[in-house]
Amino acid sequence: MDRASTGTYDPSCFRLFEGPIPAAPDSKIVVRTLLMSLDPTNLNWLKLDPQLQAIPFGVGDPMFGVSIGVVIESRAPSHAVGDVVTGMWGWRRFDVVDPLFVRPAKSATEMSFEQQLAIFSHVGRAAAGGMTLIGEVKPTDAVLVSGAAGATGSLAAQIAKAQGCRVVGIAGGPDKCEFLLEELKLDGAIDYKKEDLREAIHRHFPDGIDLFFDNVGGEGIDAVLTNMAVGCRIVVCGAMSQYNISEKSNLYGVKNLPMLIFRSARLQGFVADFGPRNQIVDELLDDLAQRGQLVARTHVIDGFEKIPDALTLLLNGKNQGKLVAQVSFD
Amino acid sequence: MDRASTGTYDPSCFRLFEGPIPAAPDSKIVVRTLLMSLDPTNLNWLKLDPQLQAIPFGVGDPMFGVSIGVVIESRAPSHAVGDVVTGMWGWRRFDVVDPLFVRPAKSATEMSFEQQLAIFSHVGRAAAGGMTLIGEVKPTDAVLVSGAAGATGSLAAQIAKAQGCRVVGIAGGPDKCEFLLEELKLDGAIDYKKEDLREAIHRHFPDGIDLFFDNVGGEGIDAVLTNMAVGCRIVVCGAMSQYNISEKSNLYGVKNLPMLIFRSARLQGFVADFGPRNQIVDELLDDLAQRGQLVARTHVIDGFEKIPDALTLLLNGKNQGKLVAQVSFD
Repeated sequence: MDRASTGTYDPSCFRLFEGPIPAAPDSKIVVRTLLMSLDPTNLNWLKLDPQLQAIPFGVGDPMFGVSIGVVIESRAPSHAVGDVVTGMWGWRRFDVVDPLFVRPAKSATEMSFEQQLAIFSHVGRAAAGGMTLIGEVKPTDAVLVSGAAGATGSLAAQIAKAQGCRVVGIAGGPDKCEFLLEELKLDGAIDYKKEDLREAIHRHFPDGIDLFFDNVGGEGIDAVLTNMAVGCRIVVCGAMSQYNISEKSNLYGVKNLPMLIFRSARLQGFVADFGPRNQIVDELLDDLAQRGQLVARTHVIDGFEKIPDALTLLLNGKNQGKLVAQVSFD
Repeated sequence: MDRASTGTYDPSCFRLFEGPIPAAPDSKIVVRTLLMSLDPTNLNWLKLDPQLQAIPFGVGDPMFGVSIGVVIESRAPSHAVGDVVTGMWGWRRFDVVDPLFVRPAKSATEMSFEQQLAIFSHVGRAAAGGMTLIGEVKPTDAVLVSGAAGATGSLAAQIAKAQGCRVVGIAGGPDKCEFLLEELKLDGAIDYKKEDLREAIHRHFPDGIDLFFDNVGGEGIDAVLTNMAVGCRIVVCGAMSQYNISEKSNLYGVKNLPMLIFRSARLQGFVADFGPRNQIVDELLDDLAQRGQLVARTHVIDGFEKIPDALTLLLNGKNQGKLVAQVSFD
């Protein structure tokens, strides 16, 4: 791949800067960050050509992400000190935010902040929009999800289950597979560290796959391409197995793309911003969460300064659920 | 790839059988074949799992294809002896055909039979339906077509030109590239035998590709994946470079699929049967042909018995346009 996606992650690319708490300019608010979402997206932003990013930033700029925070100063009529808001701002303990780009958080008694970040961020949108708008999931679909114990995959799998689909998940290790079966109530689990992926996929889907929600890339796509039902949709949400490879020659080469022809099938990539259709996606997430049909495991890192090292958990798959950082003030 | 697409073609897999001219059963017609379309599809049918085929056939059955023929016996009220029809029937000098599955050919004075087979068969449908229904071509699109001097590619390129698009074609050798520029009036031509494909593609599309109509597979897809505009559509019509490879390890591995994510792009395969939308596709072809906006080069093989060897032209790219076989009666 061009420079967009190769290169290994080194935590030392982050530096901790200290400075005064900012003051709010006219019409802006200052938030104190409580909880921050750490995502594969952040790793990609470190590598992508700035011209290609939704949020262009350069060396020296703070990383961005979805956070929950409390308003400590407001020069906007819409917000008062003490309001708890969620939105995208810099990885900072305190940041100046345009109130147009935040929305109220739910109260922590209604839903924990960790759950809110796990479900109502771009991660939830990727799962819900990817499954419905990109994957066009139908109740009769036989659905496979990779990275199914991960932040996005676990939501995507539950959304498909809530639609009535038969859903099988791929994850690494017996604990994660047990989570898929026991907590997410999926219809099957494939342990890619133990089983032959292609053989297992064929065994779980004797009539072919209708929808593959892929967070991993590489070998799984090749295996699915040879086991598609006619009209199969492969939703390319992530490619975690390919993100941390420095040598192009080590990237996985997908050989079975011509099968798309014979099955009238498609692979579709997307970013989790559906423009005017975000509202549909958010309503679906809200509805499922209120019915108790979305379970999110969260993996909480305690401490702002631990974030750079914690991001490596996303790469080695050692996070136990949606990775979030609690910002301590000690 | 699984057995669906590997394996080399050997002309000796065909045998010539001789038998009496068949008689028409009730409600059927007997046609004498005049001209037959020879297509990559035929090569794929030799290798695909019979269960996956639109027209299942086994060892000993005749190959099928789109042909033009004249009715020599009719036991159907819809057809009279002497009618010239086009449709899909066996690779036979004489075949029994259900009149429901044929339609009248245009008169040879209005349009030569070769042109009719080149434009109004599944080849034309693949080009027109692939470009419009699958690729959703828009006048503002920057379009790349591979195999652009071939039967499908040349029509697809002209259809995009007729929509007002800027169109660049990929072909092998100076003659084919001259054909693209001089006869098809494309905006650019890339000679993949002489130029570095990736470099040439990037040079011709400084702002990225909106639509790639691919007949070839392999390296071209990888090169395009790194040079897509946001929302790019890759129409996977064929994968000629991959069809005649016997060892899986020699299939090309596409490494840049994760770019689909960052560009909200898709790869979509299809077969050239659009069900109820076939009519839209046929009307588009008819309209463009009548305006003189579709030029088809045809490569005519003279003689039924030469067909097995002629199919190798499709594999080595030595056919000069749409391959058709004239069925002689000497």
